[in-house]
Amino acid sequence: MKPDTSNPLKPPAGSRSVGTSSHSFGERRDTPISSLEKWLLRNLIKTIGDPPLRVVLWDGKEIFRTDPEPNTGMIIHSRAALWRLLSNPGLQFGDEYCAGHIDVEGGLVNFVETLHRARPLLSDTSHLKRLVMALLNRPRRNTLLGSRENIQHHYDIGNDFYRLWLDQELQYTCAYFPDPGMSLEAAQVAKVDHVCRKLQLKPGEQVVEAGCGWGATALHMARHYGVSVKAFNISHEQIVAARQLAKAEGLQSQVEFIEDDYRNITGRFDAFVSIGMLEHVGVEHYRDLGEVINRTLSPSGRGLIHSIGQTQPEAFNAWVEKRIFPGAYPPTLQQMLSVLEPWAFSVLDVENLRLHYAKTTAHWLTRFEQHADEIETMFDEAFVRAWRLYLSLSIASFNTGALQLFQVLFTRRGNNDLPWSRAYLYAPNNK
Amino acid sequence: MKPDTSNPLKPPAGSRSVGTSSHSFGERRDTPISSLEKWLLRNLIKTIGDPPLRVVLWDGKEIFRTDPEPNTGMIIHSRAALWRLLSNPGLQFGDEYCAGHIDVEGGLVNFVETLHRARPLLSDTSHLKRLVMALLNRPRRNTLLGSRENIQHHYDIGNDFYRLWLDQELQYTCAYFPDPGMSLEAAQVAKVDHVCRKLQLKPGEQVVEAGCGWGATALHMARHYGVSVKAFNISHEQIVAARQLAKAEGLQSQVEFIEDDYRNITGRFDAFVSIGMLEHVGVEHYRDLGEVINRTLSPSGRGLIHSIGQTQPEAFNAWVEKRIFPGAYPPTLQQMLSVLEPWAFSVLDVENLRLHYAKTTAHWLTRFEQHADEIETMFDEAFVRAWRLYLSLSIASFNTGALQLFQVLFTRRGNNDLPWSRAYLYAPNNK
Repeated sequence: MKPDTSNPLKPPAGSRSVGTSSHSFGERRDTPISSLEKWLLRNLIKTIGDPPLRVVLWDGKEIFRTDPEPNTGMIIHSRAALWRLLSNPGLQFGDEYCAGHIDVEGGLVNFVETLHRARPLLSDTSHLKRLVMALLNRPRRNTLLGSRENIQHHYDIGNDFYRLWLDQELQYTCAYFPDPGMSLEAAQVAKVDHVCRKLQLKPGEQVVEAGCGWGATALHMARHYGVSVKAFNISHEQIVAARQLAKAEGLQSQVEFIEDDYRNITGRFDAFVSIGMLEHVGVEHYRDLGEVINRTLSPSGRGLIHSIGQTQPEAFNAWVEKRIFPGAYPPTLQQMLSVLEPWAFSVLDVENLRLHYAKTTAHWLTRFEQHADEIETMFDEAFVRAWRLYLSLSIASFNTGALQLFQVLFTRRGNNDLPWSRAYLYAPNNK
Repeated sequence: MKPDTSNPLKPPAGSRSVGTSSHSFGERRDTPISSLEKWLLRNLIKTIGDPPLRVVLWDGKEIFRTDPEPNTGMIIHSRAALWRLLSNPGLQFGDEYCAGHIDVEGGLVNFVETLHRARPLLSDTSHLKRLVMALLNRPRRNTLLGSRENIQHHYDIGNDFYRLWLDQELQYTCAYFPDPGMSLEAAQVAKVDHVCRKLQLKPGEQVVEAGCGWGATALHMARHYGVSVKAFNISHEQIVAARQLAKAEGLQSQVEFIEDDYRNITGRFDAFVSIGMLEHVGVEHYRDLGEVINRTLSPSGRGLIHSIGQTQPEAFNAWVEKRIFPGAYPPTLQQMLSVLEPWAFSVLDVENLRLHYAKTTAHWLTRFEQHADEIETMFDEAFVRAWRLYLSLSIASFNTGALQLFQVLFTRRGNNDLPWSRAYLYAPNNK
């Protein structure tokens, strides 16, 4: 399969080819920055909350700094890049960075964290500005067909690529580090166990999984908890790989991988689980998802939704939504609950694993950098810069709280078969 | 102080005096039920979901049963009571029961649970019906003055009364039974410890409590966690009693009990706690409460709100709102979060203690019944019947999931000083 890398790679129209990491500033032919350009750039930095940084231009000179001792900086390598940045900073910073027209000083994660920490909260910005931002950054629609295209854009670019920097079981969601020093592999297993314990899976039960990735969760549940799983996913590459794993382990009769949309789930289940799918569902379809859960969950059934979230309903970073995750949106906890409230589900437990995702993405970036040369050979330098930026953005977003990670456990409101405390989740040797 | 018992006691206008528990049916002079009356009554039972019960009238005869073997029943002792019930069942069932004009068979808790289990979910009722119900049952406004009146109605009816059936420290909120067999006293202490651990209180820290009851939480925090507490309450009786306790223990310098509204909280605190106040705040004031928390919580501060809730935004039981808790409303979790989201607070943990409140209220009813004669001497029979009904309604509501109990822990979204897991909450000998 030839990986579909068109979008993350696509440099902005009219851009030059990707430069090397060390630009030779003297070679640029652009004339020095004008007063108007400087004023516009200074205002852009003010608009985003005046983060402490310095800005260096194509002539190698610092044009201004917002702090006497900035620990980060941005280098704009050409006038064309400057104007594109000014025209749509949310999208163009990423594109220009990937194309090598913008670089940063002091580390990419640090740069993004500095920006995040300075950014005003939604409550401090005007209603009009929020409305304009929301309209500009509307995520793509997740219709049945649209979802398939959006998901394939990201998840079908080649399992070999993901194998280079995910854990061995290809879990592409937040791991759980009860001991922050544990390995990524151990933390991914701990995550699935944590979910299974919350769901109180019992041998022989029927589980449905919405959005199963490469199948690690479903296979682990079958292997260690004795349940049968129907696992849904619309990424063709992932389903094919997952089926191979089930066959290799002889778990085909226990785990069925189904290449279909969550909206087409039928049957009756003791547990519903969805890890890292809600981000791709779209708020306008939360009611559909709730309807599916209500239609298929048994009277004493338990459900768990694990999703990236945020504290206020802001649009996803425009560049990530356009280039990396089309159609994606991280809901607030309030929005997540709109999946459940129309059906009177009772929320039993919400856990926020934000710092666990910061650590997970940091593991991923470290592994990614260890294979950067190999990945550049598979794709090209712009691809490497795009994924470096995306992983750095993720680390910074979870570290600063711009993104959150919620696990929401629920059941029907009349189900009284509940543990008296959550101590069993933390009992040693409990599985 | 003469207890203000006007409202819970007040029999409906024109009602007869309270009867004895064994009515002598033959003495009633009411003529037999008409076809119209029977039709109206049968329709009322259908409207509430056709719970399996039988109905017995003033002549001692069963008029109908909705199930061949009902395990509960309602006895209507007069035509006047029947018509009042038909005119406004949500309110009048309670009033007629208290006045002794209606009795139930098979136990009051069982009767209410049967009704709750049959009741259609909000999602299954028409929009118009929901609108009408909501307008009919609007809770009283909680303005600064209105709150004071509403709170004094319930909490200032005499500490001696509450001492008869609450635990020794007068905690009038959901206890925590990690072991369901533990005593009410132990479970109330476990609740405060659970809250203190969630808040990760450290010696020397400053805590603010909004709605402090008789002071048990604030005093426990000062005694066992070495913190200073400013505790707010608008119930005069409770504040006076709490100050006496602080003085008796020599904790006056550490715990300040302030007779004032949560909206007047000022200062800077490491922790915010509110146990059982949100029910009295009113959804229209959640933003005010969030503003207070945002204004007074330190950058690394933690907050916890403990409140009765529900799975769908239904009006509180009309009789409870009118006669027992004026102005009260149990929010959905989504509504609770509207306290926090405008200020971008990060929700760390939500725990649902619904069954713990069912058990707590069952303990209260048992103790209440042990002192029923004494309470009747303090007040009168209608008062005893009102509180019996209110406690039974509470048990049934928590048992069936009509009511929930949420503890919501939160912090500012950029606070990274967080434990890696919740295991510390369940570690033995952890305080």
